[in-house]
Amino acid sequence: EFDAVAPTGRPALYGLVGFKNRAMAILPLHEDGTTVLVGQNRLPFGDYSWEIPEGGCPLDEDLLVGAQRELLEETGLAAADWQEILRVQLSNSVTDELAIGYLATGLSQVEEAPEGDGTEDIVRVRVPFREALDAAMAGWISDMLTVAMLLKAYHMAREGGLPRNLAKAMLG
Amino acid sequence: EFDAVAPTGRPALYGLVGFKNRAMAILPLHEDGTTVLVGQNRLPFGDYSWEIPEGGCPLDEDLLVGAQRELLEETGLAAADWQEILRVQLSNSVTDELAIGYLATGLSQVEEAPEGDGTEDIVRVRVPFREALDAAMAGWISDMLTVAMLLKAYHMAREGGLPRNLAKAMLG
Repeated sequence: EFDAVAPTGRPALYGLVGFKNRAMAILPLHEDGTTVLVGQNRLPFGDYSWEIPEGGCPLDEDLLVGAQRELLEETGLAAADWQEILRVQLSNSVTDELAIGYLATGLSQVEEAPEGDGTEDIVRVRVPFREALDAAMAGWISDMLTVAMLLKAYHMAREGGLPRNLAKAMLG
Repeated sequence: EFDAVAPTGRPALYGLVGFKNRAMAILPLHEDGTTVLVGQNRLPFGDYSWEIPEGGCPLDEDLLVGAQRELLEETGLAAADWQEILRVQLSNSVTDELAIGYLATGLSQVEEAPEGDGTEDIVRVRVPFREALDAAMAGWISDMLTVAMLLKAYHMAREGGLPRNLAKAMLG
């Protein structure tokens, strides 16, 4: 699964990092045009990072089941409607990590938003979609999947890919 | 720079892949609303992939100089105007790869578009921005940075972040 890193520290020519997980990102959208961001410390950077709910889905787990699990674990939310809106390859010169993004609507709070598990300090905020998008565009959100999912949802809202009332609430 | 992959093949907890390069993506936009896509085989996937010009910028190279070099190498184009429009962290639970995206305008063909170097089979196409965006939205372009840069440029065109004539030509 893993080939080589040259002594220089650069990945060797065509070195390949094989991931057993798929990266999952879930954009929850409430009917009022708000979404939910999760803040957590990601140790490789050490700075506080706002993201949409994300996680890894093992190869032997159904993608949608994994997405539903991640959303519930990170926010306590369940969604009646799930739509795959992004399927991309992350950093594809070095890794083969597949990333899948879901839009989750028809939301209901089925569990209390969970506390951190001790290894991560997690908080949640519910904010207008436009605020989250503006924050990403201003560079205050730096997670690639979060930025891409917000932009994709913006495109859908603008191009008629979402119910009119939801789009209107999002673009407000 | 590189910590550990657990015997399961999964990255170890808080394992960290350190990259010496920054990932660079350049979206060239001609005044007529066309852009340039590069097709090349990326061995980790083995399938043909259309992308905007991309490459790595070593830590000791200025970002803008690196972007200018990549654009020239891949397309033979030089640009009078450069604007950083994306700065994100790729796949940040496992790596610390920083990705920077530039919008390149005021384009001129200063060299012939180069041939492949033998290790990569490279071709270029000049296509309307809207066609490239639509292809990405339809899932025909799977490179994360390309998808994100097209969506970011769409957002700029829609929200008044680009000259009116250029935005009109792009959204056509």
